[in-house]
Amino acid sequence: MSYTPPTTDMTFVMTELAGLDTVSTLPGFTDATRATVQAVLDEGARFCSEVLAPLNLPGDRNPATCENGKVTASPGFKEAFAQFVEGGWQGLMHPAEYGGQGLPKLLASPCLEMLTAANLSFATCPSLTDGAIEALLLAGTRAQKQRYLPKLISGQWTGTMNLTEPQAGSDLAMLRARAVPQQDGTYRLFGTKIFITWGEHDMAENIVHLVLARTPDAPPGVKGISLFIVPKFLVDEDGSLGARNDVHCVSLEHKLGLKASPTAVLQFGEHGGATGHLIGEENRGLEYMFVMMNAARFAVGLQGIGLAERAYQKAVAYAKERVQSRPVDGSSDGPVPIVQHPDVKRMLSTMRALTQGARALAYVAASHSDLAHAHPDAAERASHRAIYDYLVPIVKGWSTELAVEVASLGVQVHGGTGFIEETGAAQYYRDARILPIYEGTTAIQANDLVGRKTVRDGGKLVRHIMARIDATLAELHAHRAFGSNPAFAAMCHQLDAGRMSMARAVDFMLANVKADTNAVFGGAVAYLKLSGIVLCGWQMARALIAASGREASNPVFYGAKMATAHHYATHILPQATALEIAIVSARSGEGMLALSGEQF
Amino acid sequence: MSYTPPTTDMTFVMTELAGLDTVSTLPGFTDATRATVQAVLDEGARFCSEVLAPLNLPGDRNPATCENGKVTASPGFKEAFAQFVEGGWQGLMHPAEYGGQGLPKLLASPCLEMLTAANLSFATCPSLTDGAIEALLLAGTRAQKQRYLPKLISGQWTGTMNLTEPQAGSDLAMLRARAVPQQDGTYRLFGTKIFITWGEHDMAENIVHLVLARTPDAPPGVKGISLFIVPKFLVDEDGSLGARNDVHCVSLEHKLGLKASPTAVLQFGEHGGATGHLIGEENRGLEYMFVMMNAARFAVGLQGIGLAERAYQKAVAYAKERVQSRPVDGSSDGPVPIVQHPDVKRMLSTMRALTQGARALAYVAASHSDLAHAHPDAAERASHRAIYDYLVPIVKGWSTELAVEVASLGVQVHGGTGFIEETGAAQYYRDARILPIYEGTTAIQANDLVGRKTVRDGGKLVRHIMARIDATLAELHAHRAFGSNPAFAAMCHQLDAGRMSMARAVDFMLANVKADTNAVFGGAVAYLKLSGIVLCGWQMARALIAASGREASNPVFYGAKMATAHHYATHILPQATALEIAIVSARSGEGMLALSGEQF
Repeated sequence: MSYTPPTTDMTFVMTELAGLDTVSTLPGFTDATRATVQAVLDEGARFCSEVLAPLNLPGDRNPATCENGKVTASPGFKEAFAQFVEGGWQGLMHPAEYGGQGLPKLLASPCLEMLTAANLSFATCPSLTDGAIEALLLAGTRAQKQRYLPKLISGQWTGTMNLTEPQAGSDLAMLRARAVPQQDGTYRLFGTKIFITWGEHDMAENIVHLVLARTPDAPPGVKGISLFIVPKFLVDEDGSLGARNDVHCVSLEHKLGLKASPTAVLQFGEHGGATGHLIGEENRGLEYMFVMMNAARFAVGLQGIGLAERAYQKAVAYAKERVQSRPVDGSSDGPVPIVQHPDVKRMLSTMRALTQGARALAYVAASHSDLAHAHPDAAERASHRAIYDYLVPIVKGWSTELAVEVASLGVQVHGGTGFIEETGAAQYYRDARILPIYEGTTAIQANDLVGRKTVRDGGKLVRHIMARIDATLAELHAHRAFGSNPAFAAMCHQLDAGRMSMARAVDFMLANVKADTNAVFGGAVAYLKLSGIVLCGWQMARALIAASGREASNPVFYGAKMATAHHYATHILPQATALEIAIVSARSGEGMLALSGEQF
Repeated sequence: MSYTPPTTDMTFVMTELAGLDTVSTLPGFTDATRATVQAVLDEGARFCSEVLAPLNLPGDRNPATCENGKVTASPGFKEAFAQFVEGGWQGLMHPAEYGGQGLPKLLASPCLEMLTAANLSFATCPSLTDGAIEALLLAGTRAQKQRYLPKLISGQWTGTMNLTEPQAGSDLAMLRARAVPQQDGTYRLFGTKIFITWGEHDMAENIVHLVLARTPDAPPGVKGISLFIVPKFLVDEDGSLGARNDVHCVSLEHKLGLKASPTAVLQFGEHGGATGHLIGEENRGLEYMFVMMNAARFAVGLQGIGLAERAYQKAVAYAKERVQSRPVDGSSDGPVPIVQHPDVKRMLSTMRALTQGARALAYVAASHSDLAHAHPDAAERASHRAIYDYLVPIVKGWSTELAVEVASLGVQVHGGTGFIEETGAAQYYRDARILPIYEGTTAIQANDLVGRKTVRDGGKLVRHIMARIDATLAELHAHRAFGSNPAFAAMCHQLDAGRMSMARAVDFMLANVKADTNAVFGGAVAYLKLSGIVLCGWQMARALIAASGREASNPVFYGAKMATAHHYATHILPQATALEIAIVSARSGEGMLALSGEQF
């Protein structure tokens, strides 16, 4: 049940694919040298593998409990969280001004990945604190920032996001929680919020809830939503803790997975109203929330990658140890470790290729985010921002969809043993299932990708990205190893086919989004998957080029990277064309769109 | 949490696609008229929906328990099982000679499907009894048959299959259980068997264990395995129960799903040896076991279909009830039931298309099995037998792989609510995961499909099947609705593409199986999926033809059938070509086959 952070691959991706050396020349990020990066990764790897990973299975067996509104985290979590705070991990990518380390997102990404791989339930807590920090940085007053940020960034306090209500899930327009303004400038909040991750716990001395609610005169729908700070304990002028606020945990959900992460039902204002402080302006809450959601969505993508990596490592360990059946090629008279059987190789290679492709795309996206924040040139910043914004729904949607598939393959590699809970593979299968749902389902990501990121600018940005793929294709074709390593020809052929499928899908969406909106959005998830497959394939192609010629220095790693890229080309990329057909075949009144409610 | 057996679709498939009217002319099956079939389905539907379905979620919450070797089934199971026995369901397809009803497998299939849909954990018990009955019918002596069959067929006793040992899962060659011959012609059995479904319980007065073990002088490997009857209580000459046998339940597994189905560790011979009776001849046990496994594999395929149908019905009910978000096409100013959103339609249509396609193929296979048993002409019997044997690994492998996918989509349709255990969608996701594993993993099925069913006869049989697809393609093309209903052109185009992919995959395997065995078997699962997709697509094409022109009589059903076939064509069939590429690209020393153990 051990976990070893894949620091070799992480470093390879950061330096060879995601431009670490460029990021570390940006103003503010000059500390992020290769040496610092290595030191941070090594220290993170130690903490994650030694402290967090061993708590993962016990946490699943002993979920957090709620008694009379008091939530007790799973055994060992409080102590581990203290070490997390001690290590300064919460502040890794947050501004030095408030006590953070101000490191680039490119470096924060592998750290977050290993955190979630080691212990997904644990990792959701700091991840939500990150979201609260982002929102305060964006829209908080100077006083609010000074009051809350240092303690959130140190990890002394944690944060939550309170969006969902029983009737308002994906549809925030239906939100009902009320915020009534008071004479002193504060608000009183009333309402029920559900699915609040780490909404109550005993790991930190205070919890800063960020809550969406409506003021009395707010317009209906999403334009009437405001964002409030509602701390569990009120915070005095001097930063010390005051009275207990009127927000209480009613119950915890009994979930399929992620059991050590308490999912709370929170009741606001049962005893006169919870004191809240407006963030930014009234009725602009959704806008702020979207900024922090974008960060959170990217982080959930990393959770998918981390979980997939963990499931992969577990399956590999089992496949090397389990001896069963003679090889089909007759190369041995006796049974061999199952890792030698072709279908087990297929499953492990598929898990590996999906995970490595997604990792590469996510880190490349993080690098664009860093350039979008810190590049001295405004036009460059805007260009990188646009690419990052395009990639976020893909990183979120595709990395989490594949995490479910990878975790499922992980169970399959274990055979009957995988179905037994003590083995541990089943936990990943259960845990993974929330990832394509929370922080916006895959369909929500896909609608964002189609509507705001692909169609709105008439396809300009996506065509710019496809032109970059063409450049990589040309590079593959001209590569000196093209003739000698069949991975090059396979990748060239399949990446080209995938990229053509992507282009035709984009053309179809642009041509039909107005005339047949349902047909286009019916293909949104297929388009998200197609983009994920092709863009991750593009990164695997770049990895193939970067690995080629280096085999001598590390034959295990570089040889495996090239073989994995080859496998990605022949086993993953061809799916793009199947998705294209689903997308471009859609017409209102035909197939699934012909089915009325009563026909299901 | 209700379940309504889809008897309209079941009847449509049986009569229009699987040739019920032909089967009911076969000697022995003349009772299976349309009227009888309808009566049996209606009665089965009542029992399944009213008695078994309501026990499914409670069974998951209250698994069977084991105390001091005594296993108590989940609450209500014992009473439900008594009703199952009372209704004569166990004997449905077994010979009238021993008290069964002798109905065709074609009719038993929908009954088994609805049983498993209603309550998969419950259904595994009679399913294993079926296996024991098949083995006894095949290889039991006249005395053994008379002693055991009537009580197994009535359901008074249940049966188990004891294959797996800790070191011997897929690889039965590694089996160690011992059977020592005694003076009186019986054997004493010693050893530990694991993963024994319903290996101990309180629902029946006796349990007939069929056990694989080695006699002292048996040759090593699979050629030294014999099959034994080891009843929980010894059975006297007159059929009355005698002494308790030396086989005991040591513990039950703590599983991901299927929790109400007790999975036992059985210890044989801790107290001097369990008394066993040889079935058939020594060292031919695996051969007999394979016969019953073939029946069991087909039954597990039906389990996949039943589970998928149940998950689909649950998701549909939620999608009709849950109101969230305005339609993307602007057709309403307010939120609508999510069933109206294009991506929810996509998910539900995909669940529906996969399930209906698999149902059609399974029932068609059942019909071939009936013809193989009962056709008066020996050549016809052999021909149907060959087709059935080809279809069994596909029905098992593909229907169970898709069950996992469908159950996962079912959770996704529910959004965050799907992750909460009380909702019930998560149970299907957990339960489904065992299906591609037990009774032979998908890889085991795929190796059988490639090795014994496709390659051994030089592709003759599979080409015969593909020629039948060609006939359907010609029929589609010539159909009067071809010009007016776009589903025809879409199906024609995509089924043709899939069939061509299948042909190229077969050509590749035939050409390379000797020279590059690993490459061929590395593509075995892809080939199984490809075959599943194309053959189920073929059935959906036949369904499209059969439904066309009947819309007036039942627009909801026939209209939905044609739309579902159309969706299958554009969303499922195109995956065949992606799988073909994975298959035909394989070469030893490249891609996944280049990865050594240490490189994973």
